Amino acid sequence: MVILIQCKDKVGLVASIAGVMAQKNINIVSMREHVDIAANRFFARLVSDHHIDSGDLMHELQRALPADAFISVNPEPEKKIVVLVTKEYHCLSDILVRNHFKTLGATVQCVIGNHPTLKNICDRFELPFYEISHEKKSKEDFESGLLKVINKYLPDYLVLAKFMRILSPEFVKRFPMHIINIHHSFLPAFAGANPYKQAYKRGVKLIGATAHFVTNDLDEGPIIEQQIIHVNHTFTASDMIKAGKEIETAVLARALKLVFEDRVFVYNNKTVVFE
Amino acid sequence: MVILIQCKDKVGLVASIAGVMAQKNINIVSMREHVDIAANRFFARLVSDHHIDSGDLMHELQRALPADAFISVNPEPEKKIVVLVTKEYHCLSDILVRNHFKTLGATVQCVIGNHPTLKNICDRFELPFYEISHEKKSKEDFESGLLKVINKYLPDYLVLAKFMRILSPEFVKRFPMHIINIHHSFLPAFAGANPYKQAYKRGVKLIGATAHFVTNDLDEGPIIEQQIIHVNHTFTASDMIKAGKEIETAVLARALKLVFEDRVFVYNNKTVVFE
Amino acid sequence: MVILIQCKDKVGLVASIAGVMAQKNINIVSMREHVDIAANRFFARLVSDHHIDSGDLMHELQRALPADAFISVNPEPEKKIVVLVTKEYHCLSDILVRNHFKTLGATVQCVIGNHPTLKNICDRFELPFYEISHEKKSKEDFESGLLKVINKYLPDYLVLAKFMRILSPEFVKRFPMHIINIHHSFLPAFAGANPYKQAYKRGVKLIGATAHFVTNDLDEGPIIEQQIIHVNHTFTASDMIKAGKEIETAVLARALKLVFEDRVFVYNNKTVVFE
Amino acid sequence: MVILIQCKDKVGLVASIAGVMAQKNINIVSMREHVDIAANRFFARLVSDHHIDSGDLMHELQRALPADAFISVNPEPEKKIVVLVTKEYHCLSDILVRNHFKTLGATVQCVIGNHPTLKNICDRFELPFYEISHEKKSKEDFESGLLKVINKYLPDYLVLAKFMRILSPEFVKRFPMHIINIHHSFLPAFAGANPYKQAYKRGVKLIGATAHFVTNDLDEGPIIEQQIIHVNHTFTASDMIKAGKEIETAVLARALKLVFEDRVFVYNNKTVVFE
Repeated sequence: MVILIQCKDKVGLVASIAGVMAQKNINIVSMREHVDIAANRFFARLVSDHHIDSGDLMHELQRALPADAFISVNPEPEKKIVVLVTKEYHCLSDILVRNHFKTLGATVQCVIGNHPTLKNICDRFELPFYEISHEKKSKEDFESGLLKVINKYLPDYLVLAKFMRILSPEFVKRFPMHIINIHHSFLPAFAGANPYKQAYKRGVKLIGATAHFVTNDLDEGPIIEQQIIHVNHTFTASDMIKAGKEIETAVLARALKLVFEDRVFVYNNKTVVFE
Repeated sequence: MVILIQCKDKVGLVASIAGVMAQKNINIVSMREHVDIAANRFFARLVSDHHIDSGDLMHELQRALPADAFISVNPEPEKKIVVLVTKEYHCLSDILVRNHFKTLGATVQCVIGNHPTLKNICDRFELPFYEISHEKKSKEDFESGLLKVINKYLPDYLVLAKFMRILSPEFVKRFPMHIINIHHSFLPAFAGANPYKQAYKRGVKLIGATAHFVTNDLDEGPIIEQQIIHVNHTFTASDMIKAGKEIETAVLARALKLVFEDRVFVYNNKTVVFE
Repeated sequence: MVILIQCKDKVGLVASIAGVMAQKNINIVSMREHVDIAANRFFARLVSDHHIDSGDLMHELQRALPADAFISVNPEPEKKIVVLVTKEYHCLSDILVRNHFKTLGATVQCVIGNHPTLKNICDRFELPFYEISHEKKSKEDFESGLLKVINKYLPDYLVLAKFMRILSPEFVKRFPMHIINIHHSFLPAFAGANPYKQAYKRGVKLIGATAHFVTNDLDEGPIIEQQIIHVNHTFTASDMIKAGKEIETAVLARALKLVFEDRVFVYNNKTVVFE
Repeated sequence: MVILIQCKDKVGLVASIAGVMAQKNINIVSMREHVDIAANRFFARLVSDHHIDSGDLMHELQRALPADAFISVNPEPEKKIVVLVTKEYHCLSDILVRNHFKTLGATVQCVIGNHPTLKNICDRFELPFYEISHEKKSKEDFESGLLKVINKYLPDYLVLAKFMRILSPEFVKRFPMHIINIHHSFLPAFAGANPYKQAYKRGVKLIGATAHFVTNDLDEGPIIEQQIIHVNHTFTASDMIKAGKEIETAVLARALKLVFEDRVFVYNNKTVVFE
């Protein structure tokens, strides 16, 4: 059982939380706590091996903690997700394989592509694939098409696994901090289009990838995970893209694991990640 | 102010600890907690920005916690160390520079060498250097010479910064978990002598270094930190030694920082490191 | 077009090779050369963007180089492989996905499992899966069963993608330096069984994986690639296994890429890898 | 003996070079060659264990190669450098220690500081320290002060080891591709001032450092080496600065080693680095 708490910091928060747990005789197997002193913000993630009624525990925690506290007791352990893609297979395939072998920590409900390219791989894993083209229609119409599918499934998260369309603020605000994107660069370097071409031209010795929550500001949402790999002068722009795909796959997989295990808190456009 | 606690695990430990802190109105800025379920062992490290009487807090914690609990309130923030060396300069120099600029997190009291090679660099930093040769004498006599110097300083830790003599069990047991060694390999690979030669012959693609506490079993003490660097077919055994020195310096520096900041707990020949 | 040369070192080898290339007006796009001075051995890998008759070029190179030279002109660019597995899916799935999207650099001809577990995933990619159980039969009979399948396909390489049986020297010598294994540890640490359990017990801070060619000495063949990931005290033995799978997948993928692109030379139980 | 060649690419360059070497009976111990196909540019670095008259070899190579070729035979193996600093000690100390123990691959002739802070550490290593303040004078006057000192020493390279002044284009063009700077960020992210504050605010999970040649465009010169380290939500801006110093020291040390061993070529504002 996982318990998540975020609130304004004050003396005695840990005691209040732990007091509730002790009173209910719940053993705390792991507790991570963080205070952002500058922001005066408190974060905690507790894991227990007991399984009690979460409504009751929630009630007790609400009584013990400040009124503004965000508390989540026993969040859905098996998240449901909808994956949005365009043409590139590497991130999607990794997700489909983990989903198939039940090691994703979430269940893929369906995949939506604005191109038909990746229907075949979804078929092989018997997962519904919806082709919703963005062509010859307004962004509003395109997104209304997406929403029609998404609303059928009510997913916990949308995962943009190399989805190459920019979503409107109206769309994004329907899923606040519940859309996860993989960006093909070490943000904030090379934000925007063609990062590998930029990287090649600049002669960098590292390339990276960034998984982040999507907000209205393109590529500016809270960063969940970043990793890099070394490149050198023998890499053409195309080699950098290939190397980039490997790191993109790894970073998105890692970010999803962290989010699905309820290890990520968001505030002030940043994340607290209890790894 | 740092508080360290280690004891057998049971329900309510966090509540007891946090209760004491809250009652004394001490704000917890950072709390790290770990339970080794298999070993039924509880570890906690708390940081507060308050500075109260530590004897009093200690007393309250002792009352609130099991009798077997190891509790440390406000351990000496500026450790005192004696460094033992032989001929290689890289780890010692790094320590001397950080000591000089007061960023080591500890104070070097003196350096002992079983060769005179490194006297010069100690002189430059105006640090006492004692040459105690191991030649033409028994290990007992050699170690009694070491002890005579060490006992003058009563250091918190002994740091073996490429000290190439094996210490006797009798010596080691005088400083249990207070001797830190840097081992020139990714333990447990290549334990013992000439690890780089072994690594070269085996054609490895990585070499590493390990910082660990010294116990009676050579190279078998609790591991504090390990890192590696990539090597390839162009590395001769001598190139591997050079690359190894870089990683040895980095790993020892990192391990010392962790130990000096009281982030390392030892049990069952392993460590819990709250980074 | 790729050209590979390995021979005893002597003055003028590069001139001889380059002379042949220049005389035939073949532009060298990339040339990597290595001399192991201790072993007096010369290695070269040339890439050209010309495509000429390889028999003719081979003949000229043989005339220009010492009689003992191993020369390979234009090795099969698309390797054929047979993959051997037991029950774990992670390495196989990665290979199947890359094979499906034609980015493996090789073609998977079939998969052989000594358990039926992974038949399903092979079916999904329409790849032949042969179940050859090792149970209730001698190693000789088991391997003769493997050979019957392998001989149908005449693959360039056998890939042991978490194949948990030890192959006999008789089997191995049929495919010298053409069997690639992924070992679940940073060899030579924790060679043999249960490396993660050993790693957990030892309290290591890194775990690794090693891809190597299979020789008669278990886990002692030439190393192609090694990588590590950091672990800490929160990892149970089971968490280490999970983290290990990620690194195993990455290391095997990288090693296969290097081998399939003809970047790996073997000698003295070591490799030269022109990355 | 090292030989460096850079010129427009054409068929037969390697043969011409190797022919000259063979004719003079010079054994090539290591040869690295690279062609940038897009830029039609050829680079080679040869190492021989012979020591012959370099003027003669130079003459032969000039005859054999295109007129535009840049050829360097036996560049000064022990570079001379002048180090420019402000107040931060970490990069300078690392250089001074390596210089002292003769493992820098170069000789530090003197150190120039625009603050007196680092005089003390230079004194300890008996190295001339010149304080040249930038205060209350024009940039022209400041730089003319620098030049007066530099011209006394005629160094091969200027190393900016956390020198916090921006040099004028007039100054830079006197030392084209012979000024090496360490930049406190993973360029091109966070170019300019206060990168760690920017990184902290953005909530990045990695911070890096970049060593590059100095050109007229601030922070836009050819990149020699880049590395990163992982950070997380527990890092304050000040912790990021501390972590950054570690990586800055490591990256500058690595870049200097590469440059001093004549492994770095520059063209099109990028580098070819034969590691």
